[in-house]
Amino acid sequence: MRATVMYSAGDVRIENVPDPKIIEPTDAVIRVTRACVCGSDLWPYQKMEHVETGRVMGHEAIGVVEDVGADVRTIKRGDFVIMPFAFSDGTCVFCHDGLQTSCIHGGFFGTTEVAGAQAEAVRIPLADGTLFPVAAHADDALMASLLTLSDVMGTGHHAAIIARVTPGKSVAVVGDGAVGLCGVIAAKRLGAEQIIILGRHPDRIALAKDFGATDVVSERGDAAVERVRELTGGYGVHSVLECVGLEQAMNTAISIARPGGAVGRVGVPQEQTIPGSEPAFYNNVTVGGGPAPVRAYIAELLPDVLAGSIEPGRVFDRTVGLDGVPDGYRAMNDRKAIKVMVKP
Amino acid sequence: MRATVMYSAGDVRIENVPDPKIIEPTDAVIRVTRACVCGSDLWPYQKMEHVETGRVMGHEAIGVVEDVGADVRTIKRGDFVIMPFAFSDGTCVFCHDGLQTSCIHGGFFGTTEVAGAQAEAVRIPLADGTLFPVAAHADDALMASLLTLSDVMGTGHHAAIIARVTPGKSVAVVGDGAVGLCGVIAAKRLGAEQIIILGRHPDRIALAKDFGATDVVSERGDAAVERVRELTGGYGVHSVLECVGLEQAMNTAISIARPGGAVGRVGVPQEQTIPGSEPAFYNNVTVGGGPAPVRAYIAELLPDVLAGSIEPGRVFDRTVGLDGVPDGYRAMNDRKAIKVMVKP
Repeated sequence: MRATVMYSAGDVRIENVPDPKIIEPTDAVIRVTRACVCGSDLWPYQKMEHVETGRVMGHEAIGVVEDVGADVRTIKRGDFVIMPFAFSDGTCVFCHDGLQTSCIHGGFFGTTEVAGAQAEAVRIPLADGTLFPVAAHADDALMASLLTLSDVMGTGHHAAIIARVTPGKSVAVVGDGAVGLCGVIAAKRLGAEQIIILGRHPDRIALAKDFGATDVVSERGDAAVERVRELTGGYGVHSVLECVGLEQAMNTAISIARPGGAVGRVGVPQEQTIPGSEPAFYNNVTVGGGPAPVRAYIAELLPDVLAGSIEPGRVFDRTVGLDGVPDGYRAMNDRKAIKVMVKP
Repeated sequence: MRATVMYSAGDVRIENVPDPKIIEPTDAVIRVTRACVCGSDLWPYQKMEHVETGRVMGHEAIGVVEDVGADVRTIKRGDFVIMPFAFSDGTCVFCHDGLQTSCIHGGFFGTTEVAGAQAEAVRIPLADGTLFPVAAHADDALMASLLTLSDVMGTGHHAAIIARVTPGKSVAVVGDGAVGLCGVIAAKRLGAEQIIILGRHPDRIALAKDFGATDVVSERGDAAVERVRELTGGYGVHSVLECVGLEQAMNTAISIARPGGAVGRVGVPQEQTIPGSEPAFYNNVTVGGGPAPVRAYIAELLPDVLAGSIEPGRVFDRTVGLDGVPDGYRAMNDRKAIKVMVKP
C-alpha cells in the first residue's frame, strides 16, 4: 500500500510499504477513509533527526474495519470507526480513569514503533479498547467533523476541561491553529461567557469568531497580556487553553490567567521547564494538561457532531490525496493551511 | 515596643521600635500573645540583601485586640483573634472566591511595607476582613494549634486541596518541615488511605507517623522516586504536596505523581521555572498551589483544633521569648528545631 514516510526534518515521501496485517490477536486493520496532518506533526517536520527506516506518519483517522484478530470482541469487519491518536486497552486502571493516553499497554500512532494513518490502511493494536465504532449512518458532509474526534476536537475539549471551563467563565485561547479553534468550540459548548482568541491569521480569526470567540487579541508578549487584562476588568481570565507548546505561549498563558485560574495546556511542550513559576505561584494559577484522552471524550462529543451543533470539521481548509501530503505538510508549516485533510 | 528586625541575611536583631498605631480607620492593633518563625522566613535569613531600615519580621500570630479604627465593624477590643499571614478586605472578588491571598487591597505581614508579628504588638490593616475572632474559650494548651491556623496548618491544607486529596487516595508529602507535617495532618483529615512522607529527620518522621503517615521515604532524587513507585504498585501517588520550594523537590514531586495526578505546591519557589515540563505533560500531571488563603480555611479547621481531633501545634518543638528569636532562626536554619514559637 501507499503511505506517508518521514525520514528527517522536511523530508516527507509517499512510498509503497507492506500492507498492514494482524500481528497480535487483539489487532484490527482499518482501511483509512480520511486522515489528516496534525500541528504536532510539524514538530518532527521541523526537527526530526534522520531515521534510516523512516517513520510512517499520521495519528488521526476514520475508516472501515477490514480485518480483526482472533481475540477482538466488540469491533467487527465493516464497522465504521474513529481511531483516536493513542491506542489503549480500555481495561487498565488509567483507562478506567478515562486517561487512555496513559494506558499501561498503550502507545501512539505514527511513531517509529507503530505505523501511522496517513496511508491507505493502518494496523490498530488493542482494537477493542482503541476504536470507537460509529453506529449511526454518517453523512459524507459529517466526515470532516468525525475525523476531528480522533484528535483536535478532543484535544481542544481536554484543554477546556483542564482549564476548568464552566458556564459563565471567561476563557482565553492561546493559539489559532486547529486545536485552538477546537478549543473555542469546546469553551463555547461548555458555556463560557467570554472567549478571547489570541492569534493573528485573518482566516483563522474569522473561523474562531464563527465558533464563538467574543474577542480577538492579535498582540503578542506583554502587549497581549495587557490587552487581555483590559478585556477582563484588569484581572485576567478564569481559564486559559494553551494550544501552542512554545515558551512564549506558556508565559503568556500564565500571565493572562486571573488569580485562582487554570491553564490547560495541550500544545506539545518544546522546552524542559515551564516558565512563569513565580507568577503562577503567587497567583495560585494551576497548570495542567497533556495528551488528551480523546477516546474518553468521543462519547460526549459525537452526538453534537452528528446533530451538527458543533462543526469542528470546518478547521480543514484543504483536502489532498496521498500524493498531496508532502505539499500539505509544507502548506501547514508555512501557515498557508490551517489543517489538511487526506483522502487516501 | 520590642520587635524582631532583620537587616540582611543572618542579621536578626531584637530592637525597640515605635508602638504600632491605627493609621487607617479600618486598622486594628493586636497585642501578640504567640507568634512564631516560619520556614519561609529562612529564605530571607539565607538570602536577604541589606535593608537600611530593616524589616520587622513575622507573619503568624494570635493575640488580643487592643485598639480598632473608626471604620472597623466586626472586630472589637478584647477579642481573641487569629491573624492570617496575609491581610485582606474580605469583600473583593477574590476574597469572595475564597482566595484572600490575592485580595485586591491586601498584602502580607512581615514585609518591608507592613510590619510583622514577631513583636509585642502588630498593626492589622483591613481588620474586619483579616482577623478571625475565636469566640470559644480556648485553653492555654490549644494556643500552639490555634497559632498554626495563621499559616502552616492552613498551608498544609491548601496543598492537600490543590493536590485533590479525597477519601481513599494515595498521597506523598515532599518535605518534613512544619508545613509538610501539617500536610500529613491535612491528608489524613481529608481521608487519604496512604500517606508517604519524604524526609529524613528522625524527630520529624516520628511526628509525621503520629500524624498519620503510613510510609517513610528517606531517599532523595531518583532513589526516592523509585521507592515511591515501589510503594504504589509502580504508578506513583494521586496527590503530591510539595512543601519545600526547591527545584529538586519539585522534580521529585512531578516524578512521583501518577498519571492524571496533581501536585499542590506551597513551598515558596526559589527558581523562575518549574522543572519537569515534559513528564508533567506526558503524564497529565497538574501543578497548582501558591500562598494559601488560610483566612478561608480557619472556619473549617478551627472546630477540629478546638475539639483536639487534630493537633498541628505539636510541630512546635521550641518556645522562646523575643530575646530568643535570633537563636530560634539559627536553630530552624540548622534544622535543630522544626518550628519555634515566640511568646513576646
